[in-house]
Amino acid sequence: VAAAIDFYFDFGSPYGYFASHRIDALAARHGRTVDWRPYLLGAAFKLNGRKPLAEQPLVRDYAVHDMKRTARAMDIPFVLPAIFPISGVPACRAFYWIRDTRPAVAAPFARAVLAAYFAEDRDIADPQVVADIGAGFGLELEALRAALQDPAVKDRLRRETDAAIERGVFGSPFVIVDGEPFWGNDRLDQVERWLESGGW
Amino acid sequence: VAAAIDFYFDFGSPYGYFASHRIDALAARHGRTVDWRPYLLGAAFKLNGRKPLAEQPLVRDYAVHDMKRTARAMDIPFVLPAIFPISGVPACRAFYWIRDTRPAVAAPFARAVLAAYFAEDRDIADPQVVADIGAGFGLELEALRAALQDPAVKDRLRRETDAAIERGVFGSPFVIVDGEPFWGNDRLDQVERWLESGGW
Repeated sequence: VAAAIDFYFDFGSPYGYFASHRIDALAARHGRTVDWRPYLLGAAFKLNGRKPLAEQPLVRDYAVHDMKRTARAMDIPFVLPAIFPISGVPACRAFYWIRDTRPAVAAPFARAVLAAYFAEDRDIADPQVVADIGAGFGLELEALRAALQDPAVKDRLRRETDAAIERGVFGSPFVIVDGEPFWGNDRLDQVERWLESGGW
Repeated sequence: VAAAIDFYFDFGSPYGYFASHRIDALAARHGRTVDWRPYLLGAAFKLNGRKPLAEQPLVRDYAVHDMKRTARAMDIPFVLPAIFPISGVPACRAFYWIRDTRPAVAAPFARAVLAAYFAEDRDIADPQVVADIGAGFGLELEALRAALQDPAVKDRLRRETDAAIERGVFGSPFVIVDGEPFWGNDRLDQVERWLESGGW
């Protein structure tokens, strides 16, 4: 069986959201599955001395324009959320707790969180919002709320983020195919070509 | 006659170099010409508080890998220059002086400078190298060398860079089609689709 491809993203990243709409079908066309790996992009930004788009005056307006244009080109719903940037901490903690307890629900949960933020403008930094999304998948609400404050779950997310950075991941989306790294929604055509050809 | 499309780039930008290999044919397919507009990207970086790739530890290694992989995918020559990043000042000054005196030579001269830097690893920050490239197009060597120190030419470049930033240009390559801005070599497919369809 061919290895899964690794799909790193931050829950607050528009381009991660865009890529999330393509990555599974793209992998499936080449007999691959996708390992969804949310992490905290802010930790990588800090190491690179990079500022969020919203804090770069010339870039910000263009970036918002580009996001809306890209969403139209891909024909997927998109609103610029009222809270932007946002913390992905509660959503990430929930994700890894779900992945460990109900693995089949993890990717659908992640898709639902991204849609809540980027299509419905819900505040995914609010643990109650994250818990409600989980409840929609039949997860036990109180257990999920408790997990968000569980030191073991907090530590799990820290380790996932450290491990991502250790592997050289620093953006969202960031895809690794058989050790080959691709940064950005606009590299998915290259990812597809890599899967087709085994590299060039 | 349809308006030219504006192609902004920095002479030291690998992705500007990559785009320079596609932009003319792409425009020509849609009955358009290209207005080549080199400028000093560093001035835009300063405004955005953005650091060069080489100074972002996690990004640098990936970026070099991505440049080489992109060059192979496009099947064009590429070396990572020994001096990187580099100043585009002499090349830009020469470009605008040539544009004003021998306009038909301007784009070919720009292509030759990009090739000297990214395919032959020559030091394009050296005025003598820039003057030699110009001489290859039959330009008078002493006049070109004098132009590189002419206050009017220096001022012309400052005004071009200010005007680019004033229009919202902040990257390389940066293409404007009928007022619509596109940042990045990886937006050229969207540029083509925009030219085809008039927008979406």
